[in-house]
Amino acid sequence: MFGKMLENVREKSPLVHNITNYVTVNDVANVLLATGASPIMSDEPDDVADITSICGGLNINIGTLNKNSIEAMFVAGRKANELKHVVSLDPVGAGASRLRTETALKLMDEIDFDVIRGNISEIKTLVTGSGSTKGVDADAADAVSEDNLDEMVSFVKKVSEKTGSIIAITGAIDLVADKETCYVIRNGRPEMSKITGTGCQLSGLIPAFVAANPDDKLEAVAAAVSMMGVAGEIGWSNMAEGDGNSTYRNRIIDAIFNMDGETLNKYAKYEVK
Amino acid sequence: MFGKMLENVREKSPLVHNITNYVTVNDVANVLLATGASPIMSDEPDDVADITSICGGLNINIGTLNKNSIEAMFVAGRKANELKHVVSLDPVGAGASRLRTETALKLMDEIDFDVIRGNISEIKTLVTGSGSTKGVDADAADAVSEDNLDEMVSFVKKVSEKTGSIIAITGAIDLVADKETCYVIRNGRPEMSKITGTGCQLSGLIPAFVAANPDDKLEAVAAAVSMMGVAGEIGWSNMAEGDGNSTYRNRIIDAIFNMDGETLNKYAKYEVK
Amino acid sequence: MFGKMLENVREKSPLVHNITNYVTVNDVANVLLATGASPIMSDEPDDVADITSICGGLNINIGTLNKNSIEAMFVAGRKANELKHVVSLDPVGAGASRLRTETALKLMDEIDFDVIRGNISEIKTLVTGSGSTKGVDADAADAVSEDNLDEMVSFVKKVSEKTGSIIAITGAIDLVADKETCYVIRNGRPEMSKITGTGCQLSGLIPAFVAANPDDKLEAVAAAVSMMGVAGEIGWSNMAEGDGNSTYRNRIIDAIFNMDGETLNKYAKYEVK
Repeated sequence: MFGKMLENVREKSPLVHNITNYVTVNDVANVLLATGASPIMSDEPDDVADITSICGGLNINIGTLNKNSIEAMFVAGRKANELKHVVSLDPVGAGASRLRTETALKLMDEIDFDVIRGNISEIKTLVTGSGSTKGVDADAADAVSEDNLDEMVSFVKKVSEKTGSIIAITGAIDLVADKETCYVIRNGRPEMSKITGTGCQLSGLIPAFVAANPDDKLEAVAAAVSMMGVAGEIGWSNMAEGDGNSTYRNRIIDAIFNMDGETLNKYAKYEVK
Repeated sequence: MFGKMLENVREKSPLVHNITNYVTVNDVANVLLATGASPIMSDEPDDVADITSICGGLNINIGTLNKNSIEAMFVAGRKANELKHVVSLDPVGAGASRLRTETALKLMDEIDFDVIRGNISEIKTLVTGSGSTKGVDADAADAVSEDNLDEMVSFVKKVSEKTGSIIAITGAIDLVADKETCYVIRNGRPEMSKITGTGCQLSGLIPAFVAANPDDKLEAVAAAVSMMGVAGEIGWSNMAEGDGNSTYRNRIIDAIFNMDGETLNKYAKYEVK
Repeated sequence: MFGKMLENVREKSPLVHNITNYVTVNDVANVLLATGASPIMSDEPDDVADITSICGGLNINIGTLNKNSIEAMFVAGRKANELKHVVSLDPVGAGASRLRTETALKLMDEIDFDVIRGNISEIKTLVTGSGSTKGVDADAADAVSEDNLDEMVSFVKKVSEKTGSIIAITGAIDLVADKETCYVIRNGRPEMSKITGTGCQLSGLIPAFVAANPDDKLEAVAAAVSMMGVAGEIGWSNMAEGDGNSTYRNRIIDAIFNMDGETLNKYAKYEVK
């Protein structure tokens, strides 16, 4: 059950090392604290091996990569792999530039990722080697919908088989799959795309959930994805006249801060395919 | 009309590449989303040419420049010029350090900027080559006021003629001018200076407005400036007992999220000189 | 009196140069503005000497240090010392990595710090040269409590004597000491640890308070520490149903924005040992 997994995060309070972009980093830190986990940020190659060693999980996000932080991603990833820590990748903007695409592919080549989370255009880019990512947003033509759901479920399982990682594709409908099983999750609100960083926040939460639930990695990722969506729903229901996307950002993190396992179980909407 | 220009941003949803400072970058992203545009951030020289190519506008802000991001500014600026994209400059802190002043001047020398937006001290520095900027705030002695308005209108037109860029000087009274025409805008609240980043947010919005209104660049910049001020007014009117500058930051972005063209037209206060 | 010291910050509006981490930098800027001071951020070695020269204080925070910003810390620190500006250090994560510990120790060796502020584990690391910092949080085993208070007061005085800096150790009970006198401060809320950056915000405020109160440096630091705690108390009392850590972050900065000297005096809880 997803609720129990959230409670495990609160109880075990995993420390998560984030090499993430400077756009949404503050929200990533606060959402990890909201869920009961602890964040630490470091992207200096000479610092990251030590830092990741004291953590339970590593979140690599290439949203504002540079030469120095790219080197740090490889150093930290190798050390985390060596220590058998949970490692996840958010390939922000893969398909939007050569550097982003190549860095994501090289990371996948050299680092074992437990989980890769992206939008559909980014994940397609990782498979085909090139993409049509519209900046950091998915190309609408690629979207997972009720019409192409079976096809997409099959696709995401194949990507998982090929990469050896759990794959999470987030959008209007979220898919979380390994090679055999796919969670189809229908939580969230379209207005979440009007806030920067809900994807990055989720990518920070994923290693926390997996580290706290090591025996059910797939379900742990699905629980994190569902919880983010439920928080978007609760946060939206708490919006008042005059509120907009900046307040909504606070409301979503607040909703996670206040969420217990029972609430997550009550609102989680998913099926397994 | 300014309102129509805001509606064009919402309809066309321009993608804006931001090379901006890490202090206010999250607010810049959220304010672009609030207005219906899309933000992308990248400041790595090996990444920016690709990223700016898929965008409609480029916002260069030197607020926390470093050797790597300075190089990225030139690479991105040249590529955006080559592709005839809208390019704007926010010379944060020009006059406060040699590096900031020289970088701004060199950028102006090598890159064609459609728009330059700064406070009065920064803009004066760009003209004279040295300045009295008080950190990142304007020197009070320089301020545009009702007393020196005609003189300042003449000054800003001359700066525009000299630089070939639309010049936006923001403060208690805002001036937006090309060599012939100056919008004098009287929106905004003094409390906006108690929040970090309202200037940076405006600098992010400017290329979005110009990209969505390519046939009326001057008026598009004036519309963005006026809208930011109107949002400051609406945001302030939504403040409750106990609220302070942190909540005000959210209220301003929220006000933009909820603003339609009619509202902007209703509250915009300006004359053309 | 602490209240008078806050009023001096509002009246003198010191400009503070921050070389700080990109996680909490926006909050550091906004909290400085909330207290009436002015922030400026710069971490490029070629920029920092000029920037720090126009400021009244320098805040060095190693939370997301990298090779470039480390160099900037030394350049800025030396220049600020030369100009007899207030300089403070926040050794974030000292004890959590070799680079952080060594950088903090080298900074203390080469720069004269008026104030060093950290959690108990970080401060212990600075004395012993190694530590058990749990990421960026203190190790619970180290905590200052009513049981070990006298021992800890003696410890912090000795650290001050050894380093020549005022030492501020923040936690459930805060200690601010020079070699002879220790303020024991009992303001704040445990929920403040569920927000990223209240420590970083305080580290930004400290040089502002000392710069505005140069004749009572020790009491000025104690006033800043107490004010941060009082803001945590007032901010918490303003929380509504459904609010969480993200809204609490805003509420704390808002409380500082609205606080006057009388309020600080009324709620400050401390004794001098």
